[in-house]
Amino acid sequence: MITVSIVNVTSYTGLELLRLLANHPEFAVTSVTGRSSAGQRLAAVFPQLAAGRNHSAPGVGDLLITEKPELTDLAFVCLPHAAAAETVVELLAQGIKVVDLSADFRLRDVATYEKWYKHTHPAPALLETAVYGLSERYRKQIAGSSLVANPGCHSSTAILALLPALAAGLIGPDIIVNTLTGISGAGRSLKVSSLYCEQDEDVSAYSLDGHRHQPEIVQELEAAARDGGHPVAGGLRLTFVPHLIPMSRGLLATCYADVKEPSLSIEEVRAVYTDYYANEPFIRVVETPPHTKWTTGTNLCLIYPTFDRQTGRFMVISCLDNLVKGAAGAALQNANLVAGLPESMGLPAMALVP
Amino acid sequence: MITVSIVNVTSYTGLELLRLLANHPEFAVTSVTGRSSAGQRLAAVFPQLAAGRNHSAPGVGDLLITEKPELTDLAFVCLPHAAAAETVVELLAQGIKVVDLSADFRLRDVATYEKWYKHTHPAPALLETAVYGLSERYRKQIAGSSLVANPGCHSSTAILALLPALAAGLIGPDIIVNTLTGISGAGRSLKVSSLYCEQDEDVSAYSLDGHRHQPEIVQELEAAARDGGHPVAGGLRLTFVPHLIPMSRGLLATCYADVKEPSLSIEEVRAVYTDYYANEPFIRVVETPPHTKWTTGTNLCLIYPTFDRQTGRFMVISCLDNLVKGAAGAALQNANLVAGLPESMGLPAMALVP
Amino acid sequence: MITVSIVNVTSYTGLELLRLLANHPEFAVTSVTGRSSAGQRLAAVFPQLAAGRNHSAPGVGDLLITEKPELTDLAFVCLPHAAAAETVVELLAQGIKVVDLSADFRLRDVATYEKWYKHTHPAPALLETAVYGLSERYRKQIAGSSLVANPGCHSSTAILALLPALAAGLIGPDIIVNTLTGISGAGRSLKVSSLYCEQDEDVSAYSLDGHRHQPEIVQELEAAARDGGHPVAGGLRLTFVPHLIPMSRGLLATCYADVKEPSLSIEEVRAVYTDYYANEPFIRVVETPPHTKWTTGTNLCLIYPTFDRQTGRFMVISCLDNLVKGAAGAALQNANLVAGLPESMGLPAMALVP
Amino acid sequence: MITVSIVNVTSYTGLELLRLLANHPEFAVTSVTGRSSAGQRLAAVFPQLAAGRNHSAPGVGDLLITEKPELTDLAFVCLPHAAAAETVVELLAQGIKVVDLSADFRLRDVATYEKWYKHTHPAPALLETAVYGLSERYRKQIAGSSLVANPGCHSSTAILALLPALAAGLIGPDIIVNTLTGISGAGRSLKVSSLYCEQDEDVSAYSLDGHRHQPEIVQELEAAARDGGHPVAGGLRLTFVPHLIPMSRGLLATCYADVKEPSLSIEEVRAVYTDYYANEPFIRVVETPPHTKWTTGTNLCLIYPTFDRQTGRFMVISCLDNLVKGAAGAALQNANLVAGLPESMGLPAMALVP
Repeated sequence: MITVSIVNVTSYTGLELLRLLANHPEFAVTSVTGRSSAGQRLAAVFPQLAAGRNHSAPGVGDLLITEKPELTDLAFVCLPHAAAAETVVELLAQGIKVVDLSADFRLRDVATYEKWYKHTHPAPALLETAVYGLSERYRKQIAGSSLVANPGCHSSTAILALLPALAAGLIGPDIIVNTLTGISGAGRSLKVSSLYCEQDEDVSAYSLDGHRHQPEIVQELEAAARDGGHPVAGGLRLTFVPHLIPMSRGLLATCYADVKEPSLSIEEVRAVYTDYYANEPFIRVVETPPHTKWTTGTNLCLIYPTFDRQTGRFMVISCLDNLVKGAAGAALQNANLVAGLPESMGLPAMALVP
Repeated sequence: MITVSIVNVTSYTGLELLRLLANHPEFAVTSVTGRSSAGQRLAAVFPQLAAGRNHSAPGVGDLLITEKPELTDLAFVCLPHAAAAETVVELLAQGIKVVDLSADFRLRDVATYEKWYKHTHPAPALLETAVYGLSERYRKQIAGSSLVANPGCHSSTAILALLPALAAGLIGPDIIVNTLTGISGAGRSLKVSSLYCEQDEDVSAYSLDGHRHQPEIVQELEAAARDGGHPVAGGLRLTFVPHLIPMSRGLLATCYADVKEPSLSIEEVRAVYTDYYANEPFIRVVETPPHTKWTTGTNLCLIYPTFDRQTGRFMVISCLDNLVKGAAGAALQNANLVAGLPESMGLPAMALVP
Repeated sequence: MITVSIVNVTSYTGLELLRLLANHPEFAVTSVTGRSSAGQRLAAVFPQLAAGRNHSAPGVGDLLITEKPELTDLAFVCLPHAAAAETVVELLAQGIKVVDLSADFRLRDVATYEKWYKHTHPAPALLETAVYGLSERYRKQIAGSSLVANPGCHSSTAILALLPALAAGLIGPDIIVNTLTGISGAGRSLKVSSLYCEQDEDVSAYSLDGHRHQPEIVQELEAAARDGGHPVAGGLRLTFVPHLIPMSRGLLATCYADVKEPSLSIEEVRAVYTDYYANEPFIRVVETPPHTKWTTGTNLCLIYPTFDRQTGRFMVISCLDNLVKGAAGAALQNANLVAGLPESMGLPAMALVP
Repeated sequence: MITVSIVNVTSYTGLELLRLLANHPEFAVTSVTGRSSAGQRLAAVFPQLAAGRNHSAPGVGDLLITEKPELTDLAFVCLPHAAAAETVVELLAQGIKVVDLSADFRLRDVATYEKWYKHTHPAPALLETAVYGLSERYRKQIAGSSLVANPGCHSSTAILALLPALAAGLIGPDIIVNTLTGISGAGRSLKVSSLYCEQDEDVSAYSLDGHRHQPEIVQELEAAARDGGHPVAGGLRLTFVPHLIPMSRGLLATCYADVKEPSLSIEEVRAVYTDYYANEPFIRVVETPPHTKWTTGTNLCLIYPTFDRQTGRFMVISCLDNLVKGAAGAALQNANLVAGLPESMGLPAMALVP
């Protein structure tokens, strides 16, 4: 077995990693960390992991939460940005391969990072060696890497939706990405805005002064356009507006752009998409507008490209489970690649419905 | 008292009219109709209207549902399109003033109506006399009218959001309206897609081949631009995409457009909005991104204009309770005008939170 | 106008009082307090109270939150227990009449209070003068009182369900009260268990070691039995188990007991209930199992007595909106009595459905 | 591979069987039936099963729905009662082993069946050979059976909660079972009461005139008491009241009874429970009040026995996922036994949280 640790396991992302890894045939979780809950067993924080009085064999719930990760082959880091980078440096120094779920190594440009995250990057040198962990784009680089920067959930959803169109040069630089996300994206920390009674029966847009996933989306889409031979002169003009909706899991992006060539048919666009994702285990180009519920608990991303009949505008809708393909599932997909295992090992593709 | 009837009271819109009219000092509901439930008391369909065994005085729950409306001063028509027009003709013939909540008299152009609704209009002559029931735009015409066409819920939300910008000529013709709506917008009829287990923890876009509120929004925004002295040459190029989210009430529109004049400041835009709505009892230009929950049960529409800092793009977010300002509340506001009463009589402005 | 203050207005109960008082013709809120938010305007805490940029007239949102209440005719105290009693003493000393929504003055017996609340009562002498604020039982005493102890939400629901049966001596002393409550009952304070993602799609029983509303229910039911001429020898043997369910508002109690006289018919029982509540403005003895949604936003309590056909066991189901009849609405009903106003003034009876 | 069919696959139970069987290493779904959707592919009814345009290999979504099941080794029957029995007879005649998820073969006594289901039993002779499919009680008989009657969801939850106490003769015959269930228990058929807007933010008790799971619970608990050497003289006096709460999945039972021996300690009771379930793969006797969410998507049943401190009354709370351990999971557990496979094969035990 390959040993792995989960750093900051008490987050929703950490918990989801526990769920996925419990069904993985090659990875064994041997170390979990947490700050305020160090010294407790996992089952004290997540009682659903308790084996019950009648089960004496130790299970995942019996794992002791420590302050620092123990030595393992690989580590999943679920810390907030800045704290993550510091831990990543320590882990790499011990020869541990890292999948970092924070934002610390996603942006290639230090200045962009520091503008958006408003602090000095703790380890700028690593930005060059870190690989952006979108398997569909960088699986070869990920396989050979010791530091994978797992994408943001909005980023994955938007990038996967728009990659084929930009790589093929089908659309112009003016793009709007409107996303809807479940509350688990806000994490497990205590905020009035995360209370049940505040979010139940409510919807609102947020981060209207700028959301940190925006530069990440721009970076990756511009790179895809460049690599596809259709560089975006002057850069993308991408507006990104997220909204919080009353559900726990799920993220849906509705993206708008103009096609460069008005004579382009929807069949041609769909052919570009199905070709682009022809061999992808988790991407499905679907024929009806997708529902987030069709992805619950899975590592799938569903993508639906279409045209607005009134204006001819190009639209593409994509969705996924923000805690799986948007976080823990993508991290496991990356870890599989890093460890030389089949990329889809242990990753569910059958949704929990209803 | 002014007598009113509710035609097709067994809809959610009909029920909401009952709630609002119960607190109205001048209107008395004396007739309610329903097809399959004709012959029953209202309390048999909506048990919450039952007065209880210990209350012997007749209440609204004791009203008998009939097949045809009785003679009243005014009628609210909550029928589906086509059926509505036929009933409206009969009501007007009896001298009854009508607020029609269907789509039958919203579009001025018969051809547009027939293209979108796919049947011959039952009373095309009335299209000329009907007034579009957006009080904020047409209160004088409504006051003198005998047939008011109540706006669609998405339409109100989008039109109110964009009216000031188009009337002042601030933005270009390329507009995207992305809406999020609670499930009550789908009505009380039986569809698999309206089941609890289908909509709970789910979100999806719908009507991607075109939603019938699109031509209504275009008609009204183009008229507003024209009346404001800034006609849109070539017409608006407006994309409208609605999404269904897991909550009962509430509708939020996020609208995107480009400003004509890049030097325009957000303060200038906001001044245009606050001036435009300076005397409106139910429109609030707010200073933080609005939440649908802040409007639950009220006739308010909250509007938040802003710029995307990354691209300079203009964005305006608006929200309301789809059953109140998006339907029954707007209808009552119109009825107040028709009856010569104060426009805001009986209309709540204090939200039910949480 | 009669001036009132709301102490600790930043709670959900405080907010609900603001909603109800906004529509009350005789009370004017002139003072609101809060600890951490003192110095802010109400609209900074509850943005839905903001009047909007286009409304220059001051509204409730413009009220300044202070640390201490100002002099008013009456005060609503929404503080947690212990803190409440200290404030109540100060208010009474200033001649201000008080409706206290905490638990501090509900129990007549100091020892019982100190056993359940685990601290010394700050003002035991007041326990004798305080009146238990269940209008249906004590309206005369409330009318003449300067300190009303508003009942707990579970308590009101259970007591109203069982009062007629115990007052008439119909049932034995063995009683089970099983309640289901929405999350707003847990208040607006920050707890992991109140997060959206923890409560969504979940149900659990809580307070299995004993819930503080149990002694309150017992006290009032035993008193009712005694006053009805059917004292319970040896006292009630009452088990109370609350459950938390995924909704914001609403509380439903399912109560079980055995009838003393097996020949008793359900018609006789219902007659006892309808007689008992014959003149009550907010109690409805209903003929079908009630839904909490039928009470949303109202001061109603719906009660459904029946027998289990398999065992002959007596069951009574009652429900109400925990923030209205279970808290703020009952408080306002009490305040009306204290102020000599009609008891139901300003209290809604038409539910917000759906 | 062992071939299986799912009869009436278009139900939520049928869909859940598809999910579980997709991860089962020995069973292959080769036939699926449905009435109104016969002739369609599965993906037309459940779009989440569509493989997507970019996946050409046939998947479960490509299965053709037929009117009659094809020949397989085993069949899961998800039809409503009466219709189920007729199909079961036909399947058995073809030598197909059957796990029937309907109520048709759960009750041993024809008269009881006909009293509760109000029609003549279509195959009374089979009642003697059918085995009640609660693996924890009848695994040996199930292993040798060709017709397994899968328990009702409320029944499993209540029986598992009370089995140890009755088998050990700890409690008296007076029992109350109060259950809370998610909406998926009402199935996928069209009813106003299953609409999102009717169930959202609502709770109510239902089947107050008697729920059909009551005689099933009584039958099994009386048998367990008898088999445990503590027969209940005069039979159980069991009241069962279910409630519908706003969530999709999950079922929680709160059961009340009196202990025979007041000196019994909670430690002794817990020891009885942990002994009784010592070797059960899916039963967990837990140490804190369980949450339904801790079982979502799993075949677990969590059980928490305790005493009410105020009255000494015995209480036991149990919960499970009504679509898994309450239906499809239990059916698969039974099918494993029938097929001679390890009982827990393919059955998840790690919950989807949040």
